[in-house]
Amino acid sequence: MRAVDIIIKKRDGKELTREEIEFFINGFAKDEIPDYQASAWAMVVLLNGMSTRETTDLTLAIANSGETMDLSQVVPVAVDKHSTGGVGDKTTLVVEPAVAACGLAVGKISGRGLGFTGGTLDKLESIPGFRVDLSTEEFMNQLASVGLVLAGQTQDLAPADGKLYALRDVTGTVDSIPLIASSIMSKKIASGADAIVLDVKVGLGAFMQELAEARRLAQLMVSIAKQAGRKATALLSDMNQPLGMAVGNALEVVEAIRTLHGEGPADFREHCLVVAAHMLALGSVARDEEEERERAEEAIATGKAWEKFEALVMAQGGDVNFVRELERLPKASKVVTVDAPQSGYLKGIHARIVGETAVLLGAGREKKGQPIDHAVGIEILHNVGDRVAQGQPLFVIHANSEDKLEEARRQLLDAHTWSEERVEPLPLFYEVIRSEEA
Amino acid sequence: MRAVDIIIKKRDGKELTREEIEFFINGFAKDEIPDYQASAWAMVVLLNGMSTRETTDLTLAIANSGETMDLSQVVPVAVDKHSTGGVGDKTTLVVEPAVAACGLAVGKISGRGLGFTGGTLDKLESIPGFRVDLSTEEFMNQLASVGLVLAGQTQDLAPADGKLYALRDVTGTVDSIPLIASSIMSKKIASGADAIVLDVKVGLGAFMQELAEARRLAQLMVSIAKQAGRKATALLSDMNQPLGMAVGNALEVVEAIRTLHGEGPADFREHCLVVAAHMLALGSVARDEEEERERAEEAIATGKAWEKFEALVMAQGGDVNFVRELERLPKASKVVTVDAPQSGYLKGIHARIVGETAVLLGAGREKKGQPIDHAVGIEILHNVGDRVAQGQPLFVIHANSEDKLEEARRQLLDAHTWSEERVEPLPLFYEVIRSEEA
Repeated sequence: MRAVDIIIKKRDGKELTREEIEFFINGFAKDEIPDYQASAWAMVVLLNGMSTRETTDLTLAIANSGETMDLSQVVPVAVDKHSTGGVGDKTTLVVEPAVAACGLAVGKISGRGLGFTGGTLDKLESIPGFRVDLSTEEFMNQLASVGLVLAGQTQDLAPADGKLYALRDVTGTVDSIPLIASSIMSKKIASGADAIVLDVKVGLGAFMQELAEARRLAQLMVSIAKQAGRKATALLSDMNQPLGMAVGNALEVVEAIRTLHGEGPADFREHCLVVAAHMLALGSVARDEEEERERAEEAIATGKAWEKFEALVMAQGGDVNFVRELERLPKASKVVTVDAPQSGYLKGIHARIVGETAVLLGAGREKKGQPIDHAVGIEILHNVGDRVAQGQPLFVIHANSEDKLEEARRQLLDAHTWSEERVEPLPLFYEVIRSEEA
Repeated sequence: MRAVDIIIKKRDGKELTREEIEFFINGFAKDEIPDYQASAWAMVVLLNGMSTRETTDLTLAIANSGETMDLSQVVPVAVDKHSTGGVGDKTTLVVEPAVAACGLAVGKISGRGLGFTGGTLDKLESIPGFRVDLSTEEFMNQLASVGLVLAGQTQDLAPADGKLYALRDVTGTVDSIPLIASSIMSKKIASGADAIVLDVKVGLGAFMQELAEARRLAQLMVSIAKQAGRKATALLSDMNQPLGMAVGNALEVVEAIRTLHGEGPADFREHCLVVAAHMLALGSVARDEEEERERAEEAIATGKAWEKFEALVMAQGGDVNFVRELERLPKASKVVTVDAPQSGYLKGIHARIVGETAVLLGAGREKKGQPIDHAVGIEILHNVGDRVAQGQPLFVIHANSEDKLEEARRQLLDAHTWSEERVEPLPLFYEVIRSEEA
């Protein structure tokens, strides 16, 4: 078998066999197939597509390119969730403790923010001492003892994915549904999740702007899970406006903790309860989402979800005093409230512009490895459809630089668009795609 | 400007500007743009195509990636020809001396054989002492003094082409009409030709098997020449059966020399006269191909074309005694005539199989840099359409190994197909594409 023949076969519109896909991915992971062949192959996949069968084989080949975690050694069922990335999406910080508090083990590999989207690891690192780099052994031990882990990807988990992603990033081959699906699912499969809720974001602040495209990705990921012997449910959720109010690392931790205390913005709380219900339903035998939603609400109401979060922080070395006394978390030097320049109904709060403004303030990074400022960010005070009067507070900027504060103010005013007519609120979710439907 | 954005622009079906193409090719030539970006870009070009304007800009960017020769310093008009590669195609060895003998300077950069097609440099090296690696200075001096040069590509001529071709070869990006056209034309333009005849081969023994595809390539190359201020004519010529009789290096030199002496196979002689007439017409003011054909015939009949060939051999260090006494050229140890196994009309003589058999015997190479055997090869004694009686000689094998001789015999018998019905001979040429038509 030769790499060039595999590229040519796909180039000529033919379907690759499992053996060919494994040969290519293993060769690439071992540096036997050079980057220049892998990038040509990725471009061919992007332009000519892949069948569900090919994408499943690709996912498994990537998952098997390094160590895989067998969580059944320590827990009977492990559930996980994955968000395709959005603005203000701190769902993991609420949902995973709530689900773990209901007795389902949650072992999650999270990522860092890139571009206009935030990352769970960056948010958690707002808490002094919090360690995200766990060894596989630490991960397994904590999953057994605490029932909850939120850690970064270890070097050995699906190494072909990291290598391929870095290459795709610089060769114009990111925007391929089969490559995105296999990248996400390979890590979920390698990290041992039995049941996975996929939160596929759609809208201005998501990678997928079109519902049809997001649906294709969601269906493909659910199919891959099924063929790999895992349970999966995909939710298509709105990302035209930011989720919740807070955008920025410490600000999002504060909002998540408030939500764990039964407070927090209603839309974000609702989003978390739906995701948690789906995770619990997938991980249980009964699978009744209504009942599971009540269990999640109860976990929050009784304080058990919060206790699980505290246990997580302690287990991973975070100083629990910072999450108990929120005013101790990192704070920006300039906190400025900007009022509505006019009266009217909010027609749009452009999530991508809000995300990019957070990056401008220092909350995110343009390139991997750049340092970030945990204190800075934005609070968006309204939702699309709200009626706001001129002079009412519209948003709050948390900045550590006067220049950036000014630019952020301008950008955020542009991000808000107005209507004199009544505007329908945006839905939280568009669709649910279950395993049996994919 | 960033390489990845140029890849994405082309990926999304947009047209690249001249500046973007120059940025990409210059960056690649200088190793500032890595191979993995260039291969993804080449695949995008292959799959999404390029306009004639983009391809012209690409050609000029490649031509300008190294030194360019200004032949006007030494000759008023320099003409050149290029064949896209075939089996038994020793046309250059006859045409270029004939044209030079008519007073038009011919400075040609030739290539080596690869796969089933032969290369002029390999053929010339059958002549002991013949040097193909000339410096630019030697090339220019010889063009001025002899009016004829046949040399290999110097390192500095269109270096981006050599680098890109090596990458395309291993990334499934060879079969792209814009990339093929720009590769050919960049070298012709960099080497200073004012007028170029493009001999585009079509058929089983050519890279292009379909007339429509060959026509596209031919039209594109003629357009590029026009936009780059050069004259060009493209001939679409048949390559379903080998051209002439001889296939193999020294054997082809012998056939070419016989043709220069007014002998040689009729089809090959005719092919050479047509190509020469087009070269002379392009390089002259009158542009009457009939008249020019007569000049070429006369150059052969008077021995002037042969004298020019002798002068070429001497100028490039070859031992002229070997071309004067043809029996001194390299000879194979086993020369076996194979007779027709049946009577009938020849329906096909599969040029590609004949070419591959020559490689099997050692006349060509599978990979760049492999050594070759100048003595071995094949003489095909008939043409498609000929009536051959059982027991009549069909072909001659020149081999240096008994095993290979046997395999060659089997393959060549397979290459000949038969019909009981009369078969039309194949045309030599299908079409002529002139600058004003492209």
